[in-house]
Amino acid sequence: MILLKNILHGATRTDILINDEGRIGRIGPITEEIPGAEIVDGSRLAVIPGLVNMHTHAAMILLRGIHEDLTLYDWLNNIWKIEAKLDREFIYWSTKAACLEMIRSGTTTFNDQYWFCPHARQAALEMGVRPVVSFIFLDSHNPELARKQREACQRLYERTLDWGPESQFAISIHSVYTVCKENIVWANQFALDHGLKVHLHLSETKVENEDCRRAHGGLSPTEYFEQLGIWGPHVIAAHCLHLSDEDVRILGEHRVNCVHNIHSNLKLASGYRFRYNELRNAGVNVCIGTDGASSANDMDMLAHMKTAAIMQKAWRSDPLAMPLQELLDCATAHGAKALGIDSGVIREGSWADLVLLDLDNSYFLSPGSVTANLIYAAGSRAVSSVLVRGKWVMREGVIPQEAEILASARKVLSQI
Amino acid sequence: MILLKNILHGATRTDILINDEGRIGRIGPITEEIPGAEIVDGSRLAVIPGLVNMHTHAAMILLRGIHEDLTLYDWLNNIWKIEAKLDREFIYWSTKAACLEMIRSGTTTFNDQYWFCPHARQAALEMGVRPVVSFIFLDSHNPELARKQREACQRLYERTLDWGPESQFAISIHSVYTVCKENIVWANQFALDHGLKVHLHLSETKVENEDCRRAHGGLSPTEYFEQLGIWGPHVIAAHCLHLSDEDVRILGEHRVNCVHNIHSNLKLASGYRFRYNELRNAGVNVCIGTDGASSANDMDMLAHMKTAAIMQKAWRSDPLAMPLQELLDCATAHGAKALGIDSGVIREGSWADLVLLDLDNSYFLSPGSVTANLIYAAGSRAVSSVLVRGKWVMREGVIPQEAEILASARKVLSQI
Repeated sequence: MILLKNILHGATRTDILINDEGRIGRIGPITEEIPGAEIVDGSRLAVIPGLVNMHTHAAMILLRGIHEDLTLYDWLNNIWKIEAKLDREFIYWSTKAACLEMIRSGTTTFNDQYWFCPHARQAALEMGVRPVVSFIFLDSHNPELARKQREACQRLYERTLDWGPESQFAISIHSVYTVCKENIVWANQFALDHGLKVHLHLSETKVENEDCRRAHGGLSPTEYFEQLGIWGPHVIAAHCLHLSDEDVRILGEHRVNCVHNIHSNLKLASGYRFRYNELRNAGVNVCIGTDGASSANDMDMLAHMKTAAIMQKAWRSDPLAMPLQELLDCATAHGAKALGIDSGVIREGSWADLVLLDLDNSYFLSPGSVTANLIYAAGSRAVSSVLVRGKWVMREGVIPQEAEILASARKVLSQI
Repeated sequence: MILLKNILHGATRTDILINDEGRIGRIGPITEEIPGAEIVDGSRLAVIPGLVNMHTHAAMILLRGIHEDLTLYDWLNNIWKIEAKLDREFIYWSTKAACLEMIRSGTTTFNDQYWFCPHARQAALEMGVRPVVSFIFLDSHNPELARKQREACQRLYERTLDWGPESQFAISIHSVYTVCKENIVWANQFALDHGLKVHLHLSETKVENEDCRRAHGGLSPTEYFEQLGIWGPHVIAAHCLHLSDEDVRILGEHRVNCVHNIHSNLKLASGYRFRYNELRNAGVNVCIGTDGASSANDMDMLAHMKTAAIMQKAWRSDPLAMPLQELLDCATAHGAKALGIDSGVIREGSWADLVLLDLDNSYFLSPGSVTANLIYAAGSRAVSSVLVRGKWVMREGVIPQEAEILASARKVLSQI
């Protein structure tokens, strides 16, 4: 048990008891002694829910910065050549390195899409972060490869049956342009049959939209996926950058979860007019993700949140766009809802996935709200400690294993 | 003397000797003993020139976050009411608090525009940062106030005559909409007569442009200032966001220094299409600044550099826009050039205004360039130590006086 004493939660100071199961047991003044509880003095701290990074390719962190100033397609072609050389050892250590950066910036759950996913999962669990990993359908419309992927998916799924609630297995359908129709339908049905989430890329670039309309009788990617019966609240769609009014309507009607990936979109010059207001108003559950670090290039959710909000204000010419509380919800509660995890909020009974913020610095001097000063000024510099399921994954800036991870990551990099 | 041994400078490791005057004495392998030199092991470090924040209102840091989600004009009206209550004590401590954030993010020189400027200067000098402070012309077209400001400027200037080279006095002409014609001309002539820089706001919003064209026979702010004979390489123009082709041509022809303030522009929804390529090609010296922390809301030049670059890529639909070396130059050498300071580059004879980066972390694992991984991934998290004129202002993350500054800043805040 952990007792956070006198910690700032929203606008007031309170006590929070985390029980042995790793859930929030009580919120409110706790004056009696709690036998066996570790007591944390919260008088210089604030607490927010752990951030949920809803779209990333964590292991790409070791490929960061090696191909700058390219378009998405040129960049993908370069990256795919390197990826052909990667092995499970590389994935394991690079996912650990990515976890270092995610933990430091307050992320407690990440929705990953990358190769050798059991090894990514293993790495994340050892770091204490909650991973959602997936089998990736990406067949380049090759029927033989498509068949093999279905078999591999089935085999991998069977290996996941003993996975506990500290991680989650999902199905990735890479995109309309990389997966054949048969596999899109099969993969989605497989996910529905087994209660799994579906993770896909959607309308990241104009070229993707144009190619789709050409290949599929004028349908947009959203319309094409609708025709194939894919959409539902089990689907997590990344990017969603170039959407028509009809696309927005479809995504809202089916209560799809759409993930905004602002740094990747800006840096690859994919676009910037993410239709946040329209998607929210249509009923979409809008989330935030960092994408992989070789496109974004950081895995810092707080930095992405600032850019997402100020970019909404700018392109809409509306300084009231994407207000702070909605922004925080997109990065916490909305992600948890999409994944079906009892997290992303601070309430009794939820998992204690919590970020403790150090307020004793210049960033929180002014009388602005903690949320404003956190997202717009301090960013991840304020993240002091992180709890996942009631366990410390970072304590006052220290993450166990850090030196070993850096050494091992350098070693696997030297081998490719 | 300080000897940086085996430090990464650009793509190679070298030694750098800082002499007793605070300048870079030698760059290259130094094998002999240097008597009296403090030796710094640079084997885990890289060095870049100190960043030059070319437009800010440093003391506004204590007003941060108290008015969110407003347009520029509404926000200014609110802020001006509070500013009427500020005193020299407030300015002194808030400038010190701002210096904490600037130092932590690698800024060694800042071009300030705020009230009680001798007190801002004093605060910065005590922190070891190089301030450029200014008398601000802002008369709201009131002739009596305008006359008083000319007298006050003259009096203040006389007080600055014994200021040494560790700081600089400049003349601010707030903007076309806040300063009468007579004072614009007088202030500029005063600056030219005394070899001072002029610091002004230019075309920050569309409304400013429209009002100017209405008031001044269809002239844009750039054209109006040109008609008044203001432009020259002594002028530092902030924002420069809504410029016509003709404006760009004028600014280039007169070799004006234009400052890009991306976070403020986005957050206040002023706009985002900063014409970097056009200004650079026209001959403008493009610099970067953070603006004040109550609009931006951070004073982190590295964060602004990332956003500036990825936003150029995005709005131009060109992932090749604003490449890394140009971006770094805008934030270092260009600022130093605009201010006439022998800084912003690492070469023998220049001031040792240097930022030492810690490379022993996840952000620099990948084989991407240090510049890419610094600006796009690590940001200010990598800033370990900072030297200004060869003196440590931060050493391995520690800034002297920090606790005292936080306590005093809280005290002055409680008094307004």
